[in-house]
Amino acid sequence: MINESVSSKFVNFKKGLLICLSGPSGVGKGTIIEALKLAGTPLTHSISITTRQPRPGEIDNVSYYFRSREHFHELLETGEILEHDEYCGNLYGTPRAPIEALLAEGTDVIMDVTVPGSLETIVNFPDAISIFLLPPSFSELRRRLTNRGTESADVIEQRMKKAIYEVRQAAKFKYIIVNEDVNQTAKVIHHILDAERHRSERCIGIEDYILGR
Amino acid sequence: MINESVSSKFVNFKKGLLICLSGPSGVGKGTIIEALKLAGTPLTHSISITTRQPRPGEIDNVSYYFRSREHFHELLETGEILEHDEYCGNLYGTPRAPIEALLAEGTDVIMDVTVPGSLETIVNFPDAISIFLLPPSFSELRRRLTNRGTESADVIEQRMKKAIYEVRQAAKFKYIIVNEDVNQTAKVIHHILDAERHRSERCIGIEDYILGR
Repeated sequence: MINESVSSKFVNFKKGLLICLSGPSGVGKGTIIEALKLAGTPLTHSISITTRQPRPGEIDNVSYYFRSREHFHELLETGEILEHDEYCGNLYGTPRAPIEALLAEGTDVIMDVTVPGSLETIVNFPDAISIFLLPPSFSELRRRLTNRGTESADVIEQRMKKAIYEVRQAAKFKYIIVNEDVNQTAKVIHHILDAERHRSERCIGIEDYILGR
Repeated sequence: MINESVSSKFVNFKKGLLICLSGPSGVGKGTIIEALKLAGTPLTHSISITTRQPRPGEIDNVSYYFRSREHFHELLETGEILEHDEYCGNLYGTPRAPIEALLAEGTDVIMDVTVPGSLETIVNFPDAISIFLLPPSFSELRRRLTNRGTESADVIEQRMKKAIYEVRQAAKFKYIIVNEDVNQTAKVIHHILDAERHRSERCIGIEDYILGR
């Protein structure tokens, strides 16, 4: 927010920010998002759209937007999907309209997507604040993946290979943070959001507003 | 700094930032710079170059770089002056080389120049972090100029007219802050500097550095 008393009367400052957080598997995206929420940064997750069948307990428009393949393709063709992927024969994606609605009402939205999905988002939504998390080192990334205890040695090797490609995409993001300490990284993201709210392209019209007061 | 332990070994993170702070006369630039220094933000002022004669007590290379008109013009022609102006028959400007030397050793440098001087700097040094301070309102700007008690009513009217032109240049800066509260504005500038250090164009080569560890 530029300043409470001015921003409360100036609509452009109140628009939310779309944050696209990415990085290799094991870098700690989930932990960072939890830390941001605990620190009081109000962030809403984007809801994905999928062509797969709902599982028991999943609610349409809450867990996912469950839609037909035809509908998904229509949205893709009209530019209504920011990023998408196919997994086990089902399409998954992030729809634009619900995000635009949240941003318009001043809500910040965070997308936690794959690296290719982030690159697609950067092209389709240039205003997104893309942040790439790097591990402090490759040996530390391996240690974190191993410590999870959920993946086999084979899967870990595959992840490490994929991570080489992923890390090489870092320069295509707006910001890069080496995630050494969760709280430090969360603080930097908080600072990035504050700085971004003050970028002049987000303050269009403020001069006339001030001149008229 | 990205992270102490990584940045200490990675030279690109250690480069200083050039901050170009501007806004209409009376908006509070000087107070903000004082507040930043009091809050512990290490900032070095750029030293200007001038063709005027030194006054008693002024020291060459400290108060100003005192140089001949010929030398000044040579620097201008070779792109060694970031911004300049003529005042009472003397040339004043900001030389590039001393700033580049400070940035290379990791020192942040702040320039407190006129609005036209800032626009010249933005063109000559696109990497500069240009910040425009807006008053909360035009009536508040008039009140601040009047409260100084140093300018006549005529001069205040001239300043207010000039301020209309100046405020209309705000969108050409990277960031805009409405300066309602000194400490709040200083905090936003601190956040902008932290965010800028993490912009990917300032982290070139970090991926290879991480991949090799």
